[in-house]
Amino acid sequence: MRIYDIIRKKRDGAELTDAEIDFFIKGLVSGSCSEPQASALLMAIFINGMGEAETVSLTRAMLASGSTLDTGGIPGLKIDKHSTGGVGDKTSIILAPLLAAMGVRVPMISGRALRHTGGTLDKIEAIPGLNTTLKPDEMTAQVRDIGMCMAGQSEEIAPADRILYALRDSTATVESIPLIAASIMSKKLSEGLDGLVLDVKTGSGAFMESIEDARALARAMISIGNSMGVKTIAVVSDMGQPLGRTVGNALEIKECISALRGRWAEDLKDLTLTLASRMLQMNDVLAEDAELGQMTEFTRRSYVHEAMEFLEKGDVFKKFVEFVDAQGGDPEVVFNPSTLPTASHIHEILADASGVIRHLDAKAVGTAAMLLGAGRLAQGDGIDPAAGIILNLKRGAQVEQGDIIALLHTSNSALTREAEEAFRSGLVISAQAAAPKPLVHEVVM
Amino acid sequence: MRIYDIIRKKRDGAELTDAEIDFFIKGLVSGSCSEPQASALLMAIFINGMGEAETVSLTRAMLASGSTLDTGGIPGLKIDKHSTGGVGDKTSIILAPLLAAMGVRVPMISGRALRHTGGTLDKIEAIPGLNTTLKPDEMTAQVRDIGMCMAGQSEEIAPADRILYALRDSTATVESIPLIAASIMSKKLSEGLDGLVLDVKTGSGAFMESIEDARALARAMISIGNSMGVKTIAVVSDMGQPLGRTVGNALEIKECISALRGRWAEDLKDLTLTLASRMLQMNDVLAEDAELGQMTEFTRRSYVHEAMEFLEKGDVFKKFVEFVDAQGGDPEVVFNPSTLPTASHIHEILADASGVIRHLDAKAVGTAAMLLGAGRLAQGDGIDPAAGIILNLKRGAQVEQGDIIALLHTSNSALTREAEEAFRSGLVISAQAAAPKPLVHEVVM
Repeated sequence: MRIYDIIRKKRDGAELTDAEIDFFIKGLVSGSCSEPQASALLMAIFINGMGEAETVSLTRAMLASGSTLDTGGIPGLKIDKHSTGGVGDKTSIILAPLLAAMGVRVPMISGRALRHTGGTLDKIEAIPGLNTTLKPDEMTAQVRDIGMCMAGQSEEIAPADRILYALRDSTATVESIPLIAASIMSKKLSEGLDGLVLDVKTGSGAFMESIEDARALARAMISIGNSMGVKTIAVVSDMGQPLGRTVGNALEIKECISALRGRWAEDLKDLTLTLASRMLQMNDVLAEDAELGQMTEFTRRSYVHEAMEFLEKGDVFKKFVEFVDAQGGDPEVVFNPSTLPTASHIHEILADASGVIRHLDAKAVGTAAMLLGAGRLAQGDGIDPAAGIILNLKRGAQVEQGDIIALLHTSNSALTREAEEAFRSGLVISAQAAAPKPLVHEVVM
Repeated sequence: MRIYDIIRKKRDGAELTDAEIDFFIKGLVSGSCSEPQASALLMAIFINGMGEAETVSLTRAMLASGSTLDTGGIPGLKIDKHSTGGVGDKTSIILAPLLAAMGVRVPMISGRALRHTGGTLDKIEAIPGLNTTLKPDEMTAQVRDIGMCMAGQSEEIAPADRILYALRDSTATVESIPLIAASIMSKKLSEGLDGLVLDVKTGSGAFMESIEDARALARAMISIGNSMGVKTIAVVSDMGQPLGRTVGNALEIKECISALRGRWAEDLKDLTLTLASRMLQMNDVLAEDAELGQMTEFTRRSYVHEAMEFLEKGDVFKKFVEFVDAQGGDPEVVFNPSTLPTASHIHEILADASGVIRHLDAKAVGTAAMLLGAGRLAQGDGIDPAAGIILNLKRGAQVEQGDIIALLHTSNSALTREAEEAFRSGLVISAQAAAPKPLVHEVVM
């Protein structure tokens, strides 16, 4: 078998076999498939696509390129949630301690901020001392001990994915449904899971702008998960405007701590509890070995009620403190969030007209936050944990000219001009409000 | 401008601007466009194609990446011929001294054998001592002094082409009409030419197997040449079976020396004189600044007659000796070709049935010659100058079972088994002959 022939086959639009995909991934890791060859193949996959069987094969080969968490000895079901990435999306940071407090095991591998989207690892690293570099056995031990962990993709996990991702990022081959699906699932399936709830974002701030693409990505990932023995469903949710009231690392941690104490924005609460109820339902279904089905309004309410009880009695807050402590973070900041990194400059964005906020574009706000220092243009760039944006008003709000719509936080005041420009490019104030958009579009299973 | 956006644009099927193509080629040479990025872009070009204007831009940028021959001070018109590559195609080695003897200047940059196809440089290097590594000023000086040179693409000529070619060769992006056209023309246009006659091969032994593809490649190259001020036409000729009686380096040089002495195979003579008459016509047309038109049978015959006179009076043979001497080769071998490298093993291919040779596949014969050591599987492999094949019989010949069809020459007898297998895979003897195929399909201008 030769990598040349595999590239040619995909170039000509044919379907690759399991053995060919395996040969490619093994060669990628060993170096016998060069980076130029891998890049040409990635472009051919991007343009000519991959079928369901090929995408499953690719994921399996990428997963097999590294080690997986050995969660077999840990009692309880291992269920994770993964979002395809957005702006202000901090649900993971609330969901992991919530589910762990309720007895579900959550071994979470997360990612970093890139371009306008945020990353869970960068957010939790805003907590002084918190370490996200855990080895597989450290992750397993922590999940056994406290029910959860939140860590980065270590060297041992899916090394093929790291090589491919770096190539895709430089060769304009990121936005391909089979490649995104295989990349996400090769990491998630390394966690030794029983079930997985995906939050596939759609709208301007998401990789998949259209709902059709989001649905296709959801289907691709569900097919991979289920064919590899991990019960998988997906919630398709809106990322047309940022989620919650903050964008940026320390600011989002503060918002999470408020939420754990019962004070949270309606959209953040709605989506978090929707995802929680799906994870809880999956836990029940898997425990009884039953089939997943649509959830009735009654069932949903009872899961939400149960979750709210755990939140209200403080168990989730305590679990979060436990998590911060276990990963070397300073638990004091959870009790006293004002000790989190703080920006030296705060710049107000004022409404330049009266009316209703018709549009508060997630990509524009995410780009503004990145420009303030909260994110990175390219992999490996440094970030400023204190930088970000507080949104006083969101879509649908009435504003008077001169009202403060948002506060830009940064450690470098020279950055605010370009950030304000980016922010304003996504802000539309008009006489009439747009029809409200649903936060959760659909559930795919 | 960012290379990422250029890749994305071509990935999505859009047309690149002159400035974008220029940015890509400059970045490729400077290293700011990485090899993975170039490979992804090559694959996007392969799949989504390039328009005429893009192909001209690409050629111009590749040409501008290096230096060109300064032939302005040399009296006489500079006209070259270039073949897209085939099996047993040795016309260049006869044409260059023929045209030079007739007063046309031929500054020829040639290539090497790759896979089943031969390369002029490897052929002439079978002459002991002959050097094909000339610097641009050495080429110019030799063209001024003796009217011709035959050299390799030096470091100074189109460095972007060398980088791209190596990438294309490993990433299955060779057989793309715009990329082939730009690669060939970026080298040819560096020769400081007035006119160019292309020999575009079609059939199993050619890059372009179908006549439609050959015609498209011819059109692409003609468009490039003419838009850059070099009068260009193309002859589309058959490469369904090897040209002439020999395949392999020293063997082909012997065949050329025979031809220069007036003993040559009908097909080799026919194609060589067809190309010579087109080059002579171009010389006349350019001298009078007239438009090129179709050639009448009368005109063709008079050019052929003129060329034959120069061949018969020995001027071409003398020019060839002069050329060998000028490039450091031993002129004695031209007078005594038996002193050329000789194979230690000769293996006969016998007819296994009686009938007519219906098919003698050029690719199969070329592959057999490569396996004997005459060619190379990958760029940079070494070759055996003595290895090759002598064809006793060709398409259309009557054979009796047991007749010698061909002789395999090699320095390593272990190679003959696989070579015979390759040879026989392209040999069909049947009761009835196939309809004869024309050697020259058409002339495109």
